[in-house]
Amino acid sequence: MKLTILGCYAATPRTITNPTSQVLEIRNHMFLIDCGEGTQVQLRKNKLKFSKINHIFISHLHGDHFYGLIGLISTFMLLNRKPDLHVYGPKGIKEIVLLQLRYSNSFTGYNLYFHELTSLESEVVFEDDKVLVKTIPLKHRIYTNGFLFEEKIGDRKLNIDEVHKYNIETCYFQKIKNGKDITLDDGSIVPNSEITFDPIKPKSYAFCSDTIYDETIIPLIENCDVLYHETTFLESESEKAKSTMHSTAKEAAMIAQKANVKQLLMGHYSTRYATINLFQQEAEPIFPNVLFADDGGVFEF
Amino acid sequence: MKLTILGCYAATPRTITNPTSQVLEIRNHMFLIDCGEGTQVQLRKNKLKFSKINHIFISHLHGDHFYGLIGLISTFMLLNRKPDLHVYGPKGIKEIVLLQLRYSNSFTGYNLYFHELTSLESEVVFEDDKVLVKTIPLKHRIYTNGFLFEEKIGDRKLNIDEVHKYNIETCYFQKIKNGKDITLDDGSIVPNSEITFDPIKPKSYAFCSDTIYDETIIPLIENCDVLYHETTFLESESEKAKSTMHSTAKEAAMIAQKANVKQLLMGHYSTRYATINLFQQEAEPIFPNVLFADDGGVFEF
Repeated sequence: MKLTILGCYAATPRTITNPTSQVLEIRNHMFLIDCGEGTQVQLRKNKLKFSKINHIFISHLHGDHFYGLIGLISTFMLLNRKPDLHVYGPKGIKEIVLLQLRYSNSFTGYNLYFHELTSLESEVVFEDDKVLVKTIPLKHRIYTNGFLFEEKIGDRKLNIDEVHKYNIETCYFQKIKNGKDITLDDGSIVPNSEITFDPIKPKSYAFCSDTIYDETIIPLIENCDVLYHETTFLESESEKAKSTMHSTAKEAAMIAQKANVKQLLMGHYSTRYATINLFQQEAEPIFPNVLFADDGGVFEF
Repeated sequence: MKLTILGCYAATPRTITNPTSQVLEIRNHMFLIDCGEGTQVQLRKNKLKFSKINHIFISHLHGDHFYGLIGLISTFMLLNRKPDLHVYGPKGIKEIVLLQLRYSNSFTGYNLYFHELTSLESEVVFEDDKVLVKTIPLKHRIYTNGFLFEEKIGDRKLNIDEVHKYNIETCYFQKIKNGKDITLDDGSIVPNSEITFDPIKPKSYAFCSDTIYDETIIPLIENCDVLYHETTFLESESEKAKSTMHSTAKEAAMIAQKANVKQLLMGHYSTRYATINLFQQEAEPIFPNVLFADDGGVFEF
């Protein structure tokens, strides 16, 4: 699971900071999460292969989370993209994108599918045989979802030495990977545990931005491997955090601690703070296993 | 007259090139012309004072000319802008901007006025006592206007030595600047030409992007001081230029020559070309007084 931070600052793009966007590479998927203005340039800067993005997840319709979407969709068009593109986001996103394409008299040469979200309950928005993506309903000034990306438990791994010892033919390999025991020609049974290793442990990543401190998300993100939680403010601005429905570093750490996540990753910093260290000082005493996003940062989990 | 090129490349923004946007500083105005994605960051990079922009002119609704507008409008909102902001652009621009503000539940704390353009004839879109702005209808794949910025002839300049020689009182100064002769107490008349200098020669700037080669614009831009004319392609791609309704370097130079402009400035280069020199080689033999825009370039006329 590899996460590239394209942007992790709140509000307006600046010469040195970018609004929210990240790329999660997980089980051969390249998921784009949020798409602030300048995301396509950040993709280029970070040398990520545009064309591999087939699914874009938009948390909410504040500009710093989606103003780069129409530009990316248009660029895909100019680059003669062919594969389908799926956009998951709040109701309205389709109208906004199509209105602009219509006025520019442009039509994508690829299929563009919108999956508009309106539910206030968590729901599965994407699923294949390897990965599951669920919404995490968040409380913010407008309708907002976080997203939980969960790897599925994969096949058991063949213990190839043991398999050869029993002279088992290739045609049985998938059956073995699926956990089945094998009956040999002499009628004896080889238990699956003897010829396989456990599958790779599935990982999970929860993206929660933007949100006020909200314990109701805990059951959804409990025990996840990595939690990205917004921390727009410090406790010194806790009133501002409440009124704008954002979180402080302390609050993000408390959610991580209560949800028993393995790792906390923080971001969506207000640009009023001179250094990310301030967030670290506030969060670490509550939840020590905390990392700090920065634009261009790459995290492998 | 000072022109800052924020971006002058066609199609998609890249790490090293930006889509169209420029700032024209003329007689105390700071006019923004087009606003591709990333314009607000380019304004910051070029250390231009955002807040002085009160008028934004959008040529057409292709993304590389206006996808940065909604972000700039939102940033003005976050920076607590108070002065009115006027946006001049094709019909549809208001709907696009307001739709996005509505979905983000945002309202500008300043007055945002849209001046939507539909005319196929040149029209005056802005005028005060110092400057006049007219549209230059262009032929492109969608409804497009260039803009002609004309300084008005200012007051005549006082020849202060001569004025003092005649003991003329201050209260007559504006009358003199307006070109009037002065009658002295003894009844004798001092002709205006004796006590004034000619006013500063008014300058004009024509912005023409995007457009196919089109001689019908010549009467509108004739004799102007500076013509910015798009040159997306070279003659080697003249078929592509025709089919996409863009111009080649040769064609831009021909328009400059036929319109007898003082200076040609080229831009809107396709990113397929490795160097701007290629455009120079093609244009200079036809129109020698040619400059080449580049992102971050500043031109004083």
